[in-house]
Amino acid sequence: MNAPATTPGISRHPALDGLTASLRELLGPRCSTSDSEREHHGHGESYHPTKAPDVVCYPLTTEEVSSIVKLCHQAKVPVIPFGAGTSLEGHVVALHGGVCIDLSRMNAITAVNAEDLDCTVEAGVTRKQLNEHLRDTGLFFSVDPGADATLGGMAATRASGTNAVRYGTMKDNVLALTVVLADGTILKTGGRARKSSAGYDLTRLFVGSEGTLGVITEITLRLYGIPEASSVAVCSFPDIASAVNCAIETIQCGIQVARVELLDETCMRAINRHNNLSYPETVALFLEFHGTEAAVVSQAEMVQMIAEGHGGEGWRFATSAEERNKLWQARHNMHYALLALRPGASSWGTDTCVPISQLAACITEIKEHAKDAPFPVTALGHVGDGNFHMGFLIRMDSPEEIREAERLNGLLVNRAIELGGTCTGEHGVGYGKAKFLRKEHGDAAVEVMRTLKASLDPDNIMNPGKVLPA
Amino acid sequence: MNAPATTPGISRHPALDGLTASLRELLGPRCSTSDSEREHHGHGESYHPTKAPDVVCYPLTTEEVSSIVKLCHQAKVPVIPFGAGTSLEGHVVALHGGVCIDLSRMNAITAVNAEDLDCTVEAGVTRKQLNEHLRDTGLFFSVDPGADATLGGMAATRASGTNAVRYGTMKDNVLALTVVLADGTILKTGGRARKSSAGYDLTRLFVGSEGTLGVITEITLRLYGIPEASSVAVCSFPDIASAVNCAIETIQCGIQVARVELLDETCMRAINRHNNLSYPETVALFLEFHGTEAAVVSQAEMVQMIAEGHGGEGWRFATSAEERNKLWQARHNMHYALLALRPGASSWGTDTCVPISQLAACITEIKEHAKDAPFPVTALGHVGDGNFHMGFLIRMDSPEEIREAERLNGLLVNRAIELGGTCTGEHGVGYGKAKFLRKEHGDAAVEVMRTLKASLDPDNIMNPGKVLPA
Repeated sequence: MNAPATTPGISRHPALDGLTASLRELLGPRCSTSDSEREHHGHGESYHPTKAPDVVCYPLTTEEVSSIVKLCHQAKVPVIPFGAGTSLEGHVVALHGGVCIDLSRMNAITAVNAEDLDCTVEAGVTRKQLNEHLRDTGLFFSVDPGADATLGGMAATRASGTNAVRYGTMKDNVLALTVVLADGTILKTGGRARKSSAGYDLTRLFVGSEGTLGVITEITLRLYGIPEASSVAVCSFPDIASAVNCAIETIQCGIQVARVELLDETCMRAINRHNNLSYPETVALFLEFHGTEAAVVSQAEMVQMIAEGHGGEGWRFATSAEERNKLWQARHNMHYALLALRPGASSWGTDTCVPISQLAACITEIKEHAKDAPFPVTALGHVGDGNFHMGFLIRMDSPEEIREAERLNGLLVNRAIELGGTCTGEHGVGYGKAKFLRKEHGDAAVEVMRTLKASLDPDNIMNPGKVLPA
Repeated sequence: MNAPATTPGISRHPALDGLTASLRELLGPRCSTSDSEREHHGHGESYHPTKAPDVVCYPLTTEEVSSIVKLCHQAKVPVIPFGAGTSLEGHVVALHGGVCIDLSRMNAITAVNAEDLDCTVEAGVTRKQLNEHLRDTGLFFSVDPGADATLGGMAATRASGTNAVRYGTMKDNVLALTVVLADGTILKTGGRARKSSAGYDLTRLFVGSEGTLGVITEITLRLYGIPEASSVAVCSFPDIASAVNCAIETIQCGIQVARVELLDETCMRAINRHNNLSYPETVALFLEFHGTEAAVVSQAEMVQMIAEGHGGEGWRFATSAEERNKLWQARHNMHYALLALRPGASSWGTDTCVPISQLAACITEIKEHAKDAPFPVTALGHVGDGNFHMGFLIRMDSPEEIREAERLNGLLVNRAIELGGTCTGEHGVGYGKAKFLRKEHGDAAVEVMRTLKASLDPDNIMNPGKVLPA
């Protein structure tokens, strides 16, 4: 769904020729200015138009990243980090041209400390690669945004996913970082201690900074022991409010679900069709429980009782690994299942998060606004966190549909903020959400963010135009 | 154990008289320069010598704090926030004189949102006050550093405690803050959404900043549902390594203990004497399990099996609320139990945290260094996190004992850092640990911290001399 690349070279910086020569000298064939590589690096997976960088570099070490950034710093040319290109808010679009640093070749798993439940990886390692590597250790890495993103990209956008309700987001699971600053300085933040009160939390400052304060090159992550037992249950509800209230009561009772996902009737229809399944086509919760065998059974029993009190019915279990995987595979393939509902359409995914008590009302209200929309509107959510994605199945060749999707997205984001929520639960700001930052955080907070940015990147070369509003 | 106050007025700032008059005009009798109030506000609960502030203010609102800071900003006079005075690293000592802002009268619980499992409190609310207030809601606030600290102070020092292994530290449990910046600007950070990727994580920047970047006046906190069932078990081990290995294996198996505390033989002797109990006087683990009735039983059974594999014996349960409270009361009163072992002595508490695989070796090594110490040396730890406190029961009137405690503390901190750990797991830097920051984080990180401090507090009036090394 990407618009065509802009004319090559349109944003050329005066110092670019000299810089490109220096980068070639440094990296040899790992520095490219080919149209196809530039175009590939000028977009993520969202509807934001492509804008290609002038040069693409493929460093192999933190020291090489530092050398690249030093050259860009001298030339005052923008630096845009790039991982797997799965961004959904235009993070990697080279708005002002410049040098794309593609970290995908820095994909070594540097250390796994099984006793300490941590590991250190280079920024280009993907989450699936890491979990594959961990397979025989009895441990796993928990953050799962669906896409097989790089861990550097996931740290940079403060990513999360379906099991954040139990295991937290990247904010909670990054212990330490190596970051290359705007002047090429190599910074180490945090450490391997599980907790620390030793000074300002630089790790959390860089997690979610989307390449605007520095380039993340290495990450130390928390790991978890694979629980003795897991089970997944699906339960149908008469409407969104009943399902959300079941989730609220579950969490209030201190029952720690590993995942609790809400899917509306359109999602369930898409899942049935795409995966040849036969769930009731009404609002559903997908729940996962982790723990000892007995704990999993007793948690599920308690939630089943709570669900019945909220009109839940048709409780179905999947306990074998195969059944569980099939079910979550269906959930993770939702994007494609939805696309199949309207052949030729693209899915415009939203990403708001509200206090859980406001979740049902917020979804219902936006669905009401969307009832005359010329395209299907879906809703699914990580109910335990109040984070939900409404999806608009639009034709990107229809300006009218794009306008309507923009209108609904604006309504949704503004409403979420008014309800005490956020414009982005897990996708990040990029440049798509920058315009909402002031409404969400207020002028003072945006000014503090600007002050921090200016203090660490006075020439504004680090991913310019992202995060902070113009 | 506080040294006498320094001579009143020794550090008077030129603009102090005018400033004091303005503060009196603003606050009336809630602005004091009495010797006793100044002395009381010049120290925490540690061995660091007292240094009294010049003026003590008792604001009632964020706006009053803002007015106070604006006046101090104009006069370029230091501002030192003060909560319950339970600091252990000299955070509240007025090293350069100035104005102490005592937040204890800002003690309103502004909102409890039971459905959303969050609440908002003024900075002077203490954790016990909050949990008392929550008593009938079925919810609780989890962070428990032992002392009845204010929540503002706990956020400012990134405090934690015994159940951080399951529920996290203040870093994990603060959702939003109101902060008064160095120029008096009122900043709101974060929000009530459970997760957000919307811009730089200002909340985490201020959590742990110890008053050096701003004064925290209001905090939004996560709450948890009280679990259906809890049980506490005590188990004896032949030595520290066996106990630590039992904890490591438990966590690796994905069993989520709510607390797991290590106590050495001296601690167990102190507990027995002080509480009239009869535990075996050897290394012990205190474990707590939370969950459904069945989950608690099955978790405990699995841990008991793991413990037996590591030489654990004498497994004893406490399941009634009364027994559990008695046991944790004994743990929390450890400070006094230890003092009773050597009448007239004070306890110098250390606070390091290492990767859990290094925990046993680190404690054993320092105990070896301390075997000829002229005072008892104890060790207790939050084993799930690798955070532990060695205690030195010294006489503060003995320069020789103070020197030896300083030597051992230095050895311990340096060793912890070499092992990948931190100089402070939960007490904070204050000025007692500032000298270790460069070794722990490196020059680049300390310079970034200085850059951030200078950008937000260019006149260095916010709690000067704390956190950053001279």
